[in-house]
Amino acid sequence: MAGAVSPLAVPFPDLPPLAGLRLGAAAAGIRYQGRDDLVLAALAPGSTVGGVFTRNRCPGAPVDWCRAILPAGRARGLVINAGNANVFTGRTGAAAARASAEAAAKLIGCPPRQVFLASTGVIGEVLPVERLTSALPALYAGLGEDGWAAAARAIMTTDTFPKGATRLARIGGEKVRISGIAKGSGMIAPDMATMLCFIFTDARIPAPALQKCLDRGVSGSFNAITVDSDTSTSDTVLAFATGQARHPRVPVDGGALLRGFAGALAEVLHDLALQVVRDGEGAEKLIRVDVAGAVSPRSARRVARAIADSPLVKTALAGEDANWGRIVMAVGKAGEPADRDRLAIAIGGVWMARNGTVVAGYDEAPVLAHMRGREISIAVDLGLGQGRATIWTCDLTHRYIDINGSYRS
Amino acid sequence: MAGAVSPLAVPFPDLPPLAGLRLGAAAAGIRYQGRDDLVLAALAPGSTVGGVFTRNRCPGAPVDWCRAILPAGRARGLVINAGNANVFTGRTGAAAARASAEAAAKLIGCPPRQVFLASTGVIGEVLPVERLTSALPALYAGLGEDGWAAAARAIMTTDTFPKGATRLARIGGEKVRISGIAKGSGMIAPDMATMLCFIFTDARIPAPALQKCLDRGVSGSFNAITVDSDTSTSDTVLAFATGQARHPRVPVDGGALLRGFAGALAEVLHDLALQVVRDGEGAEKLIRVDVAGAVSPRSARRVARAIADSPLVKTALAGEDANWGRIVMAVGKAGEPADRDRLAIAIGGVWMARNGTVVAGYDEAPVLAHMRGREISIAVDLGLGQGRATIWTCDLTHRYIDINGSYRS
Repeated sequence: MAGAVSPLAVPFPDLPPLAGLRLGAAAAGIRYQGRDDLVLAALAPGSTVGGVFTRNRCPGAPVDWCRAILPAGRARGLVINAGNANVFTGRTGAAAARASAEAAAKLIGCPPRQVFLASTGVIGEVLPVERLTSALPALYAGLGEDGWAAAARAIMTTDTFPKGATRLARIGGEKVRISGIAKGSGMIAPDMATMLCFIFTDARIPAPALQKCLDRGVSGSFNAITVDSDTSTSDTVLAFATGQARHPRVPVDGGALLRGFAGALAEVLHDLALQVVRDGEGAEKLIRVDVAGAVSPRSARRVARAIADSPLVKTALAGEDANWGRIVMAVGKAGEPADRDRLAIAIGGVWMARNGTVVAGYDEAPVLAHMRGREISIAVDLGLGQGRATIWTCDLTHRYIDINGSYRS
Repeated sequence: MAGAVSPLAVPFPDLPPLAGLRLGAAAAGIRYQGRDDLVLAALAPGSTVGGVFTRNRCPGAPVDWCRAILPAGRARGLVINAGNANVFTGRTGAAAARASAEAAAKLIGCPPRQVFLASTGVIGEVLPVERLTSALPALYAGLGEDGWAAAARAIMTTDTFPKGATRLARIGGEKVRISGIAKGSGMIAPDMATMLCFIFTDARIPAPALQKCLDRGVSGSFNAITVDSDTSTSDTVLAFATGQARHPRVPVDGGALLRGFAGALAEVLHDLALQVVRDGEGAEKLIRVDVAGAVSPRSARRVARAIADSPLVKTALAGEDANWGRIVMAVGKAGEPADRDRLAIAIGGVWMARNGTVVAGYDEAPVLAHMRGREISIAVDLGLGQGRATIWTCDLTHRYIDINGSYRS
């Protein structure tokens, strides 16, 4: 956390209280000293939950815990800690997860299986769970409606700014609010992208409908960003609905009534996902990669990701070098259908290469001017079909190496 | 090319003359000033050739040219230039390739389709082919038997040391020699790995048999290394046999007579491939990743590559940080069968994690001592089956970003 704030940082938004949610943060001394590292959320009785988790085959104990309790769709509590990911910690780690849930459940007055967990930080070290559980009673006693910024700060690890977003939506004419916080800046890749993201709404939505909206929103947000192609063992997106808003009853499968809600939820997720990229470890530029003309959306997505994950593309972007040859290389290495002689490439809206060669009279000056900015756009047209995809990433700079060469020390 | 020599560099070996081969280098001023950038090799009549090329879907014009002429299996010449890759240059690029081959063929006195080509350097700029062809006559006139080191230097781009290797083998009791040079230090990934590698032998080997030996040798060498996961558009391995040695006739499909030759060729390829990793852009450590216990060799290879390509693993290695949690992450993200609770991980022969948790009484001191060295070994046992694979890579350091942030400037 030491060091300068990302030049791509955005201010933390004003997040109003949300009916049915009390939130707080505390310093449990799990790893960090002199800062909050523990978050507790208490949800109104009857709250529902949806979740999406990492596809990493070596998930952490909190991910195992959440996966096991998610099918019931009920949530009363959420415990998050930073500094220790409780990953690859065997039975001790599983016991630590259970003990955290039990301690929070006792305070809230609910079954432990209605308490969700997330941990982020170092892998492979046993979570000092007593520090966590002994900090919970005072934290619970102090829970309030204004804990958003403190919670967003307490879950940071290598993040340089706290991340929040909020939108209003209407369900059957009634206003509902969707607010969320997220953390993550390294080990970020699609499927899943962020390390942690928590969404809260006062809407009253059955768990299956909430899950459906969440799945759709995640695919265009957290699954469309990449910082370093590494997939975390802890990635978790949870959405909680406290059911306090007064709107018509939502059917189990959602349906048309949730159209506006689903759109607003997708916007919150997208906003938070882009904040995660803006805080990509060492990031100095936010990169948008649009691929069109692929044989399918899936193929477009793979090509976009090959570009966005290429260290050579990312270092050229950091160096403000309009080296579009590396984009050609990345397209070619994706292994997807591509015809060199139909390929077209643009940076900042300037098409520099078409039909397998440089555009006649190509002037690099406007491209270089675009590249000196903070937000860079790359467009590729494969000229083969209708498949499109967009991926966001950041550049690869010295700070990434500084941060990751000595994270533990 | 400016900057310090890789700390992992090895001396250029003493490569004796090879019957049937004359080699030379010259300064054509294609991009670099004040250094050789053009290599010409002339081969005895009757020489055969085998080749392996990049799988990148956007290959360069020289790769297209070589692919087209390879099936005939005959070679009399080889032209290599550094500084311009002649990739993504459309019809102009194809014409430039043809003109280079024609100019060399005229000097050697052979059909253009027996002249192989390779170019390395910047992508997307038209090759100034007149500079190349006008330098060829003087270069041809000065060809000699001692051009190895000069040729190895002339094909360097971001390389910091020239790369060569040689072995003796016996075919039917008669000695034959296999010598090669290579270049490459970035945009290196399996399938294909190096940018350029050229092998010469005085053996008399039918092209199909030579191709078979080459395919086998490449899979354990250039297809088992990765520097930055990026696949070049120009990767080329060519093996030429001048047929000057006096040994029993080798059948078209090779067979038992070539066993010793194939083994020695594999050694030369392996030696050169490891030199390419040793000169990985910014490399300060050579990393060997051994994966065992996978469900298949293919699965083992994918897991090994996920570890070797992970920026988080590579930056931790650069920082001499025994952060084995990132190895767990990389195993999990490979998408291959893996059971967290059977996984075991070692660095420098010290098993630090077994059965899904840290080893009791694990002492980090010997691991840290190993990590401070130049050659690091990582071993992973998935505990599932008999599949094994080994991949070599290097660490990810600031120098990689320095080199690639401003390659063209």
